[in-house]
Amino acid sequence: MDFTKELPKKYKRDFAYSYALGPFPTFELLGSAAERALCVFIDESFNEREKLIALCESKAVPHIFSKKALSRISSKDICYAAAAFEKASSPLMDGMAHIVLVNPADMGNLGTIIRTALGFGIKDIAVISPAADFHDPRVIRASMGAIFKIRIDCFSSFDEYMRGFPGRDIFPFMLDGGTVLTPEGCPKSERYSLVFGNEASGLPASFGKYGKSVFIPQSKEVDSLNLSVSVAIGAYVFTHSNPAD
Amino acid sequence: MDFTKELPKKYKRDFAYSYALGPFPTFELLGSAAERALCVFIDESFNEREKLIALCESKAVPHIFSKKALSRISSKDICYAAAAFEKASSPLMDGMAHIVLVNPADMGNLGTIIRTALGFGIKDIAVISPAADFHDPRVIRASMGAIFKIRIDCFSSFDEYMRGFPGRDIFPFMLDGGTVLTPEGCPKSERYSLVFGNEASGLPASFGKYGKSVFIPQSKEVDSLNLSVSVAIGAYVFTHSNPAD
Repeated sequence: MDFTKELPKKYKRDFAYSYALGPFPTFELLGSAAERALCVFIDESFNEREKLIALCESKAVPHIFSKKALSRISSKDICYAAAAFEKASSPLMDGMAHIVLVNPADMGNLGTIIRTALGFGIKDIAVISPAADFHDPRVIRASMGAIFKIRIDCFSSFDEYMRGFPGRDIFPFMLDGGTVLTPEGCPKSERYSLVFGNEASGLPASFGKYGKSVFIPQSKEVDSLNLSVSVAIGAYVFTHSNPAD
Repeated sequence: MDFTKELPKKYKRDFAYSYALGPFPTFELLGSAAERALCVFIDESFNEREKLIALCESKAVPHIFSKKALSRISSKDICYAAAAFEKASSPLMDGMAHIVLVNPADMGNLGTIIRTALGFGIKDIAVISPAADFHDPRVIRASMGAIFKIRIDCFSSFDEYMRGFPGRDIFPFMLDGGTVLTPEGCPKSERYSLVFGNEASGLPASFGKYGKSVFIPQSKEVDSLNLSVSVAIGAYVFTHSNPAD
């Protein structure tokens, strides 16, 4: 569709495009993945409009002023700038650390995890379906646009992921994992995969057979940690296990 | 009000009571702070109703069956059980580790932080106002009821907190903090306070003068980490800095 002529539609999962809502994710899109940007929507009262227009022009991305388009795509929130962009998966790099999310369900968690992963230098994320739609505008927003700086791909099963990336060091995070998470237990190579289960159910017991299962020591007074917190701790320890870091 | 006779009202900040929404937080309330429970609301189709009723009876907490009450207090979500409870602050313990949140604004973050703190054995949380209402049902739910197992208190300013708890080791977490967060930099005593700023703005530069400011090493590709992630990393490192833990 031509966003400069038709009002944009509220996002649905089967669209070939999605939206970055809010100035910050919009700037991130234009800065890191401008080739995927289809159209930028701007509220005339946006205080950084000149800067955003200049960026659109330098990247040859069309922009329009339309409060109506912004309110249509952003549901309830006030939104001064947004962008439509083409969805894309990107093949993961085998030589790098991966985070593998098995059936993540919560959009906010997924976005926070993407932002945290990038914050700790992990740029390859595998999502095992069924899972929340990582292109949903709520994920993009929670990621603060970090999704435009990483590689993320979807797999129909963990076995499919394993077939695509054989021979890696696999670390499933499980409440009954075999080893306590410690900096000393982390591999020197970056060719490892940190694997996390669904928010409600964690990883199935069958994941104990893959690689070296680990657990994050935690008080018995909580049922478990929040998924995005567990991923953050795992990513932090693995990426900071070398004192030279 | 008598919850067994009148329909409960949707929560407002000025109420003297709040609600634990959902079975898990309701069980946590009855298990850990039953003396604050005012009434339990149950959907007749709730599959653990017998267990919940027995717990209510053993704790002398009234319960009623009312789908209408549940839908009234839980806004949109389907909710099989909930409870009204008396709000309370509890004085923090000086001999223990504290987490101090300066002007936290997001309910979900606040609840996740409470759950994470308890998960790492930190049971004392100070909230510096203005701040999100830590009794809001959204906070209770995001905490998964962990709020009923910790001490949490509100202060009108950081200086008021400092006057109440003088002589502690203060660690403000700042993007331009003076020291990298490392296990070696953590004190042996538990009499420390980990201090975090607001989601959008962090701590004001003036916090550099309190104690020993620290930062969590992170990629320049992100603006910052999510607040609940930063607190999780800080709490994890401080509570796991002793290899004997």
